[in-house]
Amino acid sequence: MNATIETILAHRSVRDFEDKKLTKEQIETIVKCAQSASTSSFIQAYSIIGVTDQAKKDQLASVAGNQSYVAKNGHLFVFCADFYRHEVIGEMEDANILQTIESTEKFMVGLIDAALAAQNAALAAESMGLGICYIGGLRNDLPKVCELLEIRERVIPLFGMVVGYPAKMNEQKPRLPLEHLYHENRYEAEKESYQQQLLTYNETIKHYYDTRTAGERVETWTEQMARTLSRRTRMYMHEFVKQKGMNKH
Amino acid sequence: MNATIETILAHRSVRDFEDKKLTKEQIETIVKCAQSASTSSFIQAYSIIGVTDQAKKDQLASVAGNQSYVAKNGHLFVFCADFYRHEVIGEMEDANILQTIESTEKFMVGLIDAALAAQNAALAAESMGLGICYIGGLRNDLPKVCELLEIRERVIPLFGMVVGYPAKMNEQKPRLPLEHLYHENRYEAEKESYQQQLLTYNETIKHYYDTRTAGERVETWTEQMARTLSRRTRMYMHEFVKQKGMNKH
Repeated sequence: MNATIETILAHRSVRDFEDKKLTKEQIETIVKCAQSASTSSFIQAYSIIGVTDQAKKDQLASVAGNQSYVAKNGHLFVFCADFYRHEVIGEMEDANILQTIESTEKFMVGLIDAALAAQNAALAAESMGLGICYIGGLRNDLPKVCELLEIRERVIPLFGMVVGYPAKMNEQKPRLPLEHLYHENRYEAEKESYQQQLLTYNETIKHYYDTRTAGERVETWTEQMARTLSRRTRMYMHEFVKQKGMNKH
Repeated sequence: MNATIETILAHRSVRDFEDKKLTKEQIETIVKCAQSASTSSFIQAYSIIGVTDQAKKDQLASVAGNQSYVAKNGHLFVFCADFYRHEVIGEMEDANILQTIESTEKFMVGLIDAALAAQNAALAAESMGLGICYIGGLRNDLPKVCELLEIRERVIPLFGMVVGYPAKMNEQKPRLPLEHLYHENRYEAEKESYQQQLLTYNETIKHYYDTRTAGERVETWTEQMARTLSRRTRMYMHEFVKQKGMNKH
């Protein structure tokens, strides 16, 4: 096992950081690593906003459901799908590109580009001994995030990522069995064996929460998923994304 | 600079592989690394299909615009957003989760989850001395990909990734200037300086293509983007994704 694979396999989200900021050099290295990721047809359809203003961080923490680590960390990055750049290019080159950049296909490209870049950033940070946590909670209120960070049309903040010196490391959460997630040559999902794999995994997760919370939390993965997915959260997203000029047709 | 950051910064897409298959151990390590990535609310909304059947690989290469490296490589992975798993969970737990998993918000989660996992897979492979290339070209005809790999509803193949022993390494493509892509505290895009950055970058890219093709290709980045985005490709995606049961509302 090499150092990179060790870093990858050692990942766990960190939610408790020392009071120590990242240096300009660390931030630049992380962003350069993000930019090294592949990008669909060289389109580079994303932007990154670093947030250092404490008042803004406090308000973003409130958007994310009062998660204190969104306010208290070494640095907060916000990853955005970005087609404003391409709108400007359309004007510069006198090319009609609006139909394309407003399509669902290009919305997907923006999301995938941004996520590939983000995961490079995450691993770069972790390889330096820093900890990270993705902040999907920003999607609780993207209009507010856009207002706070003055994010314009054709740019959609997707998630945050807090980075910093870990004050506390959590245990790793066990993942789905490899054979449940990885198929060969065809998507195999014979319902009976598929459900059986989920039941086996449920025992793993029940044990994980039980041990971690000293018996306070007793929940299987399918229970947790059913509970989470029964809540109709962030249903404004469909309209919001369209208003931003993406995923329209 | 540590080994992980070196691996990240050394990335370039590889499109020419030796005739040597990946071992079962290599494939498992790569998939385990993919699974180590963060996942939104622990939802694990993706699946990976490994394609070894040569006839299927040939047909997928044809979908991707006859790119020979889709057929000839050490291994081909196809990354999918997957909410079939959660549909089954809804039945198992007698929970009404369809509204949620059909939302644009969860479509975004599926794409982001799959892409984070994929980038871990890419770096794991590259750290082993293998090369990779993302195959967005599969999105030319996703109904065909679904037919070939027997991919069911609520599962959407997003992109492929070919992995193998590099027969030839390309140069690295220069990325957008860091200050154009990375903002602090607010999305800054004063149009004049923004366009100026693009013009500067254009010179970099023109020089890159010029050198790489011995003068045969003379194109700036904004020209390339305008050309690419003027083509209304993959416009079926909006309807296709809905039919698959995602991004509906």
